[in-house]
Amino acid sequence: MSSNPTLDRLIDCFASLPGVGRKSAARLAYHVLDMSDEEAFDFAEAIRESKTKLHECPICHNYTDSDHCRICGDLSRDHGIICVVESPRDITAIERMREYKGVYHVLHGLISPMDGIGPEQLYIKDLVKRAAEDGIKEVIMATNPTAEGESTALYLSKLIKPLGPKVTRLAYGMPVGGNLEYADDVTLYRAMEGRNEL
Amino acid sequence: MSSNPTLDRLIDCFASLPGVGRKSAARLAYHVLDMSDEEAFDFAEAIRESKTKLHECPICHNYTDSDHCRICGDLSRDHGIICVVESPRDITAIERMREYKGVYHVLHGLISPMDGIGPEQLYIKDLVKRAAEDGIKEVIMATNPTAEGESTALYLSKLIKPLGPKVTRLAYGMPVGGNLEYADDVTLYRAMEGRNEL
Repeated sequence: MSSNPTLDRLIDCFASLPGVGRKSAARLAYHVLDMSDEEAFDFAEAIRESKTKLHECPICHNYTDSDHCRICGDLSRDHGIICVVESPRDITAIERMREYKGVYHVLHGLISPMDGIGPEQLYIKDLVKRAAEDGIKEVIMATNPTAEGESTALYLSKLIKPLGPKVTRLAYGMPVGGNLEYADDVTLYRAMEGRNEL
Repeated sequence: MSSNPTLDRLIDCFASLPGVGRKSAARLAYHVLDMSDEEAFDFAEAIRESKTKLHECPICHNYTDSDHCRICGDLSRDHGIICVVESPRDITAIERMREYKGVYHVLHGLISPMDGIGPEQLYIKDLVKRAAEDGIKEVIMATNPTAEGESTALYLSKLIKPLGPKVTRLAYGMPVGGNLEYADDVTLYRAMEGRNEL
């Protein structure tokens, strides 16, 4: 597409990102060439470090660059309430509304027999173990309001309810079939307020 | 925004790209985390190499990873026709239509007194020197059809015409106020065919 392999390689990298087409990828690649050396090297280093420094928190499986994630290590938060989400970016969305004071559990996926993803490929065993601990009052299901999100929430509630904690589900304040990551803060806040027991 | 500085830094880097907002930047950053180590390191290396390996062609000022760019070094092209563009990505657009067989000259900007950019900040001296060489038959002004593009083309034509070559301008087949980079191939082809003498 362009006239040299070094540039083509960079365009290919950008084009592999979600929602970025060939023309946008070329525009982004040329923007990198217009950056100062320092900015571009910093960008490259940020990508590299995101893979070398970040790992999963052993408690909640969110990404972290220290032993435990900042939320699990924060004693001012309520460790008796666990909010279950599909992916770490859902935590970013919920934290943005600044209303939730409990902790999280990241499943890193949803049960989806169509894609061959069963409960054993997700962090469900860990969650059940956490939910059985002393002092856990509530487990909030905050999976996306899609078919997979609903059935995963239902499956988990059946496992967790017998262990004692109340199991709740985000209210349908959000548009059905939508995506938690792109919900606006008010909608997300209403959904959190109106959560119902499963 | 997220809960750790390593991730925030990567999100900041993506958010600094043109047309990428905070939410999209977060989505792209999380996508990098979902990549294999190999893919991510390759991406980082592609960014780094684009700055270390690529430099400007000493003749036309397009980006290249060898001594001269592929187009300037291609003897099958007509070196008597020079197409003047604002930026290297405009060359990508023109090459895409596969009809132009001459060579290029990249100004790396347009004359814009509002932004404090005068002729001396662009590769105009180089262009005038090239245009004065033996065998240059035509200089095509292919700057964007905007106010700055028009006035730069007019300014250059006044400098180059006395030297001998015919000076032409891309036809207004393309929407006025638009952007050369995003023109479709047919529009671009028509604009090249209907070029007029200035």
